[in-house]
Amino acid sequence: MAGGIGSRFWPFSRADKPKQLLDFFGTGRSLLQMTIDRFRPLVPIENMIVATNVAYKEQILAQVPDMKEDQVLCEPARRNTAPCIAYAVSHIRAIAKSENVNIVVAASDHLILEEETFRQTIAHAFDFVAEHNAILTLGMKPTRPETGYGYIQYIQEPSALCLDNVSIKSRDCLDSVSTTPCEKYADIYPVKTFTEKPNLEMAKVFVQSGEFLWNSGIFIWNLRTISEAFEQHLPEVANLFRSGEQLMGTDKEEAFIEDIFPKCPNISIDYGVMEKAQNVFVLPSDFGWSDLGTWGSLYELSQKDDTGNVSLHSEALFYDSKDNIVTLESGKLAVVQGLEDMIIAEENGVLLICKKGEEQRIKQFVADAQEKFEGKYN
Amino acid sequence: MAGGIGSRFWPFSRADKPKQLLDFFGTGRSLLQMTIDRFRPLVPIENMIVATNVAYKEQILAQVPDMKEDQVLCEPARRNTAPCIAYAVSHIRAIAKSENVNIVVAASDHLILEEETFRQTIAHAFDFVAEHNAILTLGMKPTRPETGYGYIQYIQEPSALCLDNVSIKSRDCLDSVSTTPCEKYADIYPVKTFTEKPNLEMAKVFVQSGEFLWNSGIFIWNLRTISEAFEQHLPEVANLFRSGEQLMGTDKEEAFIEDIFPKCPNISIDYGVMEKAQNVFVLPSDFGWSDLGTWGSLYELSQKDDTGNVSLHSEALFYDSKDNIVTLESGKLAVVQGLEDMIIAEENGVLLICKKGEEQRIKQFVADAQEKFEGKYN
Repeated sequence: MAGGIGSRFWPFSRADKPKQLLDFFGTGRSLLQMTIDRFRPLVPIENMIVATNVAYKEQILAQVPDMKEDQVLCEPARRNTAPCIAYAVSHIRAIAKSENVNIVVAASDHLILEEETFRQTIAHAFDFVAEHNAILTLGMKPTRPETGYGYIQYIQEPSALCLDNVSIKSRDCLDSVSTTPCEKYADIYPVKTFTEKPNLEMAKVFVQSGEFLWNSGIFIWNLRTISEAFEQHLPEVANLFRSGEQLMGTDKEEAFIEDIFPKCPNISIDYGVMEKAQNVFVLPSDFGWSDLGTWGSLYELSQKDDTGNVSLHSEALFYDSKDNIVTLESGKLAVVQGLEDMIIAEENGVLLICKKGEEQRIKQFVADAQEKFEGKYN
Repeated sequence: MAGGIGSRFWPFSRADKPKQLLDFFGTGRSLLQMTIDRFRPLVPIENMIVATNVAYKEQILAQVPDMKEDQVLCEPARRNTAPCIAYAVSHIRAIAKSENVNIVVAASDHLILEEETFRQTIAHAFDFVAEHNAILTLGMKPTRPETGYGYIQYIQEPSALCLDNVSIKSRDCLDSVSTTPCEKYADIYPVKTFTEKPNLEMAKVFVQSGEFLWNSGIFIWNLRTISEAFEQHLPEVANLFRSGEQLMGTDKEEAFIEDIFPKCPNISIDYGVMEKAQNVFVLPSDFGWSDLGTWGSLYELSQKDDTGNVSLHSEALFYDSKDNIVTLESGKLAVVQGLEDMIIAEENGVLLICKKGEEQRIKQFVADAQEKFEGKYN
């Protein structure tokens, strides 16, 4: 998934250069490129699909030159993750040679530090969903009471899934299936609830309880399972895509999508499917993950100098300053005196200086700038 | 005089684009161009001379296309104002048709708000020095206890200079010349002392006393007077220039200057001549002057929004912020949240954020950057 506009990192990310297409860490690779490279040892490039906004298609093909044009699915409107995934699933169903297809859905703008562990986790998840009619999500072991993430509460009895493709239709039937945990998948648990971003007090309780994991938004399932889930939980979306089933994978797909996609409801996969489905499992994971959703999370992840200052891409000199995060265009120099706990970000004609604790207001700043300067600095 | 490197306004001013060559107020004219334009109604362009560092010659000729190459005198080394003025005086002596030449010396990087009043003042000063063997300086009526300026203490009895080119050799002889003030020059007074930049307490006393004026660094004299003053008070400088008198104004001038200029002592005209000479007078003036020597002085002069914020060249949105001064490159946008009393300046790859009260440290920041990044951000 590479359709986000990343307005939280404005002005570093921009409408025409969203977060996933940026060389976020100054490594020479964009977050999208890093995401694709991360999967390469596991998934052949020709089996990867990027779902994005039509505005980013050319940039994506330029960044991933070994990807063919028909591997980039263009959403003609912004409709959140459920329609995006329904589109990709529908496309895969049309071009796949069998229903026996494992799918991993991942955002293109997250950070993963331990890539080999990540791939081992995904391989294990593929095995699981190949054998079970299960929706699997990766839950991150929380290291702090982060209020910027959704949480997954899970049932800490082993999932008791074993053997021979038993189709688990509801948690209630777990006990009736087997009381003996299957060793191979003893690390996979049934999900009890998905919760939205909590306040700090709640987040502390979540972390202390040991029952909650961060919702990474990385999902693994097989084609049949997710198709059935859409039919069952989001039938209006499933029906829209089924209406042109025979057009998918042909040269009429684009026109069809342009017709039906805007008719989809704006709904997330979490709200539309995960929270409703009964066959949802979680694999607690630990591979140094961040959704890079906030300046705060980026600051936490970044290497700091003795006084807690971070400079991401550019040179910096700090005086009487601490705990700031600075990102200027590469090659520039920041000289910062007398600042504490600030975000200082400059990109393509816009400089933002904002207290770290006020970063949730950046969206409003963008809206104000849009209104006042007629989109000049979007 | 256009040889300064304006390091106090780094990074807005830079070694290769000093303050006088910048479009400081976003008006489309540099401070040098504004200075030259200010004199045009009074002094024909062919009678103007710009003394500068050789590094700025081409930029100056490009900015003032009706100035000829031989009107730009190039200093091969930085030696403060006394050698600079000695060079210009020596050049003028060589090319002038008589000794009856009035000269005004002015910095090219000051701001003057009331230009017509300024020209009337200069015209009056020209009349005075044409008739008297006097060094005349313009003293600004102080409006605040500014610690960034030198002060001139003056004797508040009218100068009693009158009539017929009486040569005033010392203040002591004033009374003996005449006890009747000359009405035409009743606004011109003998100077008692020049003082360096005072501390705040001292500056307050100066302003309250009514005896002190700001030293503008604008001098008016005739060619004979200043030539004599150099012979008398800076003979080593005078001798150096006299040694090649016959080369000045010829195609050998440049080589001669390259030879002798670096041998001059590094000394200001104030220290080398003004403080020693006996025939120094001041014309108290009021035409909205600033030497634009500090961010603070620029802030004071600039138009502020309701919360005291100044944005000089670029667009800006301020939130929870007051009393800041922002200058980005024209066309850019600054979004500033949660800052007070700061300088935010960005130019050509360098962003400076610094408390207004700490701006005297900027020179050190430049030196640190020079050392650490080997001159990349000078």
